[in-house]
Amino acid sequence: MPVERGERATPAQVQGHDRAVSAAGEGKAPRTERGRRTMRAILDAAALEFGERGFHEASISGITRRAGVALGSFYTYFDSKDAVFRALVRDMSDQVRDHVAPLIRAAPDQLAAERAGLLHFIEFVRGHKELYRIIDEAEFVDPESFRLHYATTAERIAKRLQAAATRGEVRGDVSEVHAWAIMGMNVFLGLRYGVWSEDVSPEAVAETIGDMLATGIAPR
Amino acid sequence: MPVERGERATPAQVQGHDRAVSAAGEGKAPRTERGRRTMRAILDAAALEFGERGFHEASISGITRRAGVALGSFYTYFDSKDAVFRALVRDMSDQVRDHVAPLIRAAPDQLAAERAGLLHFIEFVRGHKELYRIIDEAEFVDPESFRLHYATTAERIAKRLQAAATRGEVRGDVSEVHAWAIMGMNVFLGLRYGVWSEDVSPEAVAETIGDMLATGIAPR
Repeated sequence: MPVERGERATPAQVQGHDRAVSAAGEGKAPRTERGRRTMRAILDAAALEFGERGFHEASISGITRRAGVALGSFYTYFDSKDAVFRALVRDMSDQVRDHVAPLIRAAPDQLAAERAGLLHFIEFVRGHKELYRIIDEAEFVDPESFRLHYATTAERIAKRLQAAATRGEVRGDVSEVHAWAIMGMNVFLGLRYGVWSEDVSPEAVAETIGDMLATGIAPR
Repeated sequence: MPVERGERATPAQVQGHDRAVSAAGEGKAPRTERGRRTMRAILDAAALEFGERGFHEASISGITRRAGVALGSFYTYFDSKDAVFRALVRDMSDQVRDHVAPLIRAAPDQLAAERAGLLHFIEFVRGHKELYRIIDEAEFVDPESFRLHYATTAERIAKRLQAAATRGEVRGDVSEVHAWAIMGMNVFLGLRYGVWSEDVSPEAVAETIGDMLATGIAPR
């Protein structure tokens, strides 16, 4: 399942077209602004096609039809259905990070940053419900992308926690174990309150969890 | 992904053959001890077959070969590959719960119980690495089982937290949100420290997370 990779991104990373270039690491990088728009359209269409139909039922022609581009344009950027799927996993991972990162950066301290990260992750999920199905299907279709998505995310959470520890904003012994726990919480809270149902506001979820992260659940 | 459903099980539930009967809700309940052993052998073989080959590549003949039973015996209990997969998801979910429940029950208070639950869940995962692949594949092969697995697990965690709150063992306002967070943490910690690598002991992971759950990660 997906999760925000809300580390401190460079300003360039938060530009949409740089996301497409980054995703093109799995395909062929477009050289023009028009090419970048085409690639963006293909990736957005692929998200809908894979999200609705699943990898095996999805087709390249389904993607190009949704994107309104010719089959030739598809092959300008991607060699196969596998290649566009791989690029899509990377692109969605980057989109989540880019959506959440500036909001994490803007927080006054790390506990507020974790709260903001969860809040904006759930909001992002609500607008991109196909996210989970795509990342989850990667476990079977493209295990390396699946593993990379989570390993990278956890590593970045661990780094931001450890940086916060040196600033005295969290306890000094935060580790990779905390990072995996926070990632897991956020993934499941996104599934429950972002994809399955919107019966609790993202603010309320983030408030509850922010409080738990700050002070635990021992009796007061 | 799977998770312990460590609610207070009845003693009968922790018997292996009752697990088979319970799983048979998806198949046909065996009436004799020999029948229960055959069904157990089929489910154990199915875990290996689906875990190694995935649902689409797995075959009924692969399952019966691994189980050392005749094809006719398979059809005595299951109508199809879909039926045995569905029974297997339920069975694995029950196995995790039955492994962890008595250890949760034996803990002196709820914070110790959550720590014990995580510790023994990671240990169980280490001995059953196929667990994740099977539960995760259910999202695509049998979405209803997937959803039921997590909804049921979260509901039981929420109930045990709320019962603990009435005993004054955790803060009074624990809710479904806390339950989903704890489930998500445990699932991802099991993936990282149970399936992917055993570089940190289950005891150390459980100690770190038990401490985080008790008192949070704010600076001391």
